[in-house]
Amino acid sequence: METDSTHRAFGGTQGIYTHDSEETGTQMRFSVFVPDHDEGAKLPVVWYLSGLTCTHANVTDKGEFRRTCAELGLIFVAPDTSPRGDNVPDEEAYDFGQGAGFYVDATEEPWARNFRMRSYIETELPALIAKEFPVADMERQSITGHSMGGHGALTIALRNPDRFRSVSAFAPIVSPLNCPWGHKALTGYLGTDRSTWRAYDACALIEDGARISGILVDQGEADNFLDEQLKPHLLGEACAKADIPLTLTLRTGYDHSYYFISTFMDAHLRWHAQRLG
Amino acid sequence: METDSTHRAFGGTQGIYTHDSEETGTQMRFSVFVPDHDEGAKLPVVWYLSGLTCTHANVTDKGEFRRTCAELGLIFVAPDTSPRGDNVPDEEAYDFGQGAGFYVDATEEPWARNFRMRSYIETELPALIAKEFPVADMERQSITGHSMGGHGALTIALRNPDRFRSVSAFAPIVSPLNCPWGHKALTGYLGTDRSTWRAYDACALIEDGARISGILVDQGEADNFLDEQLKPHLLGEACAKADIPLTLTLRTGYDHSYYFISTFMDAHLRWHAQRLG
Repeated sequence: METDSTHRAFGGTQGIYTHDSEETGTQMRFSVFVPDHDEGAKLPVVWYLSGLTCTHANVTDKGEFRRTCAELGLIFVAPDTSPRGDNVPDEEAYDFGQGAGFYVDATEEPWARNFRMRSYIETELPALIAKEFPVADMERQSITGHSMGGHGALTIALRNPDRFRSVSAFAPIVSPLNCPWGHKALTGYLGTDRSTWRAYDACALIEDGARISGILVDQGEADNFLDEQLKPHLLGEACAKADIPLTLTLRTGYDHSYYFISTFMDAHLRWHAQRLG
Repeated sequence: METDSTHRAFGGTQGIYTHDSEETGTQMRFSVFVPDHDEGAKLPVVWYLSGLTCTHANVTDKGEFRRTCAELGLIFVAPDTSPRGDNVPDEEAYDFGQGAGFYVDATEEPWARNFRMRSYIETELPALIAKEFPVADMERQSITGHSMGGHGALTIALRNPDRFRSVSAFAPIVSPLNCPWGHKALTGYLGTDRSTWRAYDACALIEDGARISGILVDQGEADNFLDEQLKPHLLGEACAKADIPLTLTLRTGYDHSYYFISTFMDAHLRWHAQRLG
């Protein structure tokens, strides 16, 4: 792991790092905020997965998470959304290819070699964080994300309930099986057999038996993607049938931007901190 | 005035606006955050002047001011740092020309026509804010800024103590007469007669009799520009001689970036709100 930069912020350290990923076969970049802490302390980790077109930088610049993380003693990790580089396949599209990994392990060509964001986020990067940040307590992890990253957070938490104490999301894609972004991405990365998609669909995972102790979702009511792509009522229905407590709040006037995310970031971090104990 | 965009954020509205400026002869862009308010309320205005290379966007994206402004009922106005455009003179330099107006009314050619940031910020833009934002209380104004914008905030407040209840700055240039950035900018915009520079130097203004009730300054101790360009001790000496209360805090480990600014933004806004009454 190499350090691109570190900056003092809010009584902690905001760093940006790169490493060579075996999963993606590329150099990957991520950011980590570590609050000041007592010697020997082990701090819980909150993962933030970003949305389409984003890198680690959007939330690092505009997420307004550091004040609350410093107060609550939370390590905040923000990975990239896909492998990148001249040798990585891409398409002329904002919603597929580089910047749009959808947190899947692709099986279709030419994507299968590099687009392994599921394994990267679930396995490779946590091992690196555990090794390189001596204060990281990997027994206490939470996960959140925005839009495509909300989809990533929900599906990763539902597949790994033993590793995550809590999960939340900002304007998540709750069911790729039921929206154009999902159809395009999962067809491209996984092929046309929709049974393989169900491991990457929060609603389908719940229908198929996945359980978690609760979910917090905030959704902007003025979000342009609400009706066609996000459809939070589908998550509401799945959670109701499965008796999973869901706190879903529609926020009047708020859109899909970081103005929305930053407004509710503090509340999400406090919700996670409560469950991290 | 035209509205580029508005977004709901932190229980208020973050807008970005453009207008044709008579002072600069160009289209100018600025951002305004207006917290929700009671009908008929008049909210005090806090001005934030940005540093070299910045536009309105840097603090709007990374300043982390909205939560506190919403809580305290403060309107936050962030102008650009210079006129811009193909018809505006420029140099291949980050510290002179476009993005580096230094909040002066230039008298030298070819800058005199467009580079009128003093009159723009002191007179034209406040009149527009008063007219277009019906909640703005122009009897209650405060001003702050970063680096070159801290220089702007200090000099504008010292020249207009009747209009500003309070002034603060993040890592300000306190004396253009005594640093390379100042020498270059004031020579270029005002010429070599240094007596004309004194109206644009916070320390010289105080030496020449300007008074204000108090100044708050935060300065990063790890700021690369501290020793050669910023020299806050000069402001300390000027304030001490003039009996102006100065709260100057050196922040260990902090640099010149928005990581530093955003960390102390909340404290500055609370300091202003106290004085705005």
